[in-house]
Amino acid sequence: MTLPLSKENETWLKSKIRDIPDFPKPGIIFKDLTTLFSDAKAFAFVLDTMTECCRQFKPDVIAGIEARGFILAPTIAYRLGVGFVPIRKPGKLPYRVEKLQYELEYGFDTIEIHADAVGHGHKVVLIDDLLATGGTAAASCRLLTSLGAEVVGVGFAVELGFLPGREKLADKDVFSLINYT
Amino acid sequence: MTLPLSKENETWLKSKIRDIPDFPKPGIIFKDLTTLFSDAKAFAFVLDTMTECCRQFKPDVIAGIEARGFILAPTIAYRLGVGFVPIRKPGKLPYRVEKLQYELEYGFDTIEIHADAVGHGHKVVLIDDLLATGGTAAASCRLLTSLGAEVVGVGFAVELGFLPGREKLADKDVFSLINYT
Repeated sequence: MTLPLSKENETWLKSKIRDIPDFPKPGIIFKDLTTLFSDAKAFAFVLDTMTECCRQFKPDVIAGIEARGFILAPTIAYRLGVGFVPIRKPGKLPYRVEKLQYELEYGFDTIEIHADAVGHGHKVVLIDDLLATGGTAAASCRLLTSLGAEVVGVGFAVELGFLPGREKLADKDVFSLINYT
Repeated sequence: MTLPLSKENETWLKSKIRDIPDFPKPGIIFKDLTTLFSDAKAFAFVLDTMTECCRQFKPDVIAGIEARGFILAPTIAYRLGVGFVPIRKPGKLPYRVEKLQYELEYGFDTIEIHADAVGHGHKVVLIDDLLATGGTAAASCRLLTSLGAEVVGVGFAVELGFLPGREKLADKDVFSLINYT
């Protein structure tokens, strides 16, 4: 999918994002989206644009990754008139879960989804706030697929284009609004 | 505020909520709202009704409590054309934070908000998915007030009316859609 934003709008949205040096660890410049979320006009623009990107995939359901994916995915689901499904950290979902452990740079992490959250033939668009290394998003796709769903698209508000996140999602239709190269 | 739902609609929404016995510990019946969130019609009805409840308070901003408050608060903010501010668990917010430690049944918990997220004169409605003992919501109100904001309302999708959550929010204008008595 081509970039859905004009250069002007991308620059405008970037002006709403705050750089935090050395968070969560030295050497990393964290992209703080809370300043974008608290700006009513910019936040609505992001939600509207992501909704239109997702609409093209004709999803039956929108899945969001805990916790910041929850800030975007439910509004998109609401706007498209479909349901929302959370992908969560271990031990948070109360019913029977499907879980997946995946490798991080140092160590492992685990994500969970309710085993009955999606099923065979469901078309899902997966949403998170930011694409970095792509590990959690790729694991979430595998988790959704293991339940029989089809991941028809993966969307992010922000992409760190200097990291190899897209490679981990090479077999998926991926969009992002704001790209840092 | 009076209950915004008819008995029929409350019964309908309750039929979308799943009871999970003994979660997170023996003797507790957990109200699993994921089955409501994944039902497009019921989820939209909850979001629409909460939006209209919040509109009466004329807020400048909607605050949501991590993580399940994030599933509701941003759509309400979007619908009202105001910004969204997250209240998070410790160590998650990257900028300078205001934090508050509060007492649980056994032990303590801490919540944080960005110190510049709200300011003097801001009218805030605080949103979470479920009102139980009210500890986190009351602490969130204190946190918002400590930054100079006015908490003009507090809203929940579900209230466990058999617990004393309302007492902890006695000085606040509180609404909930679905009440278990």
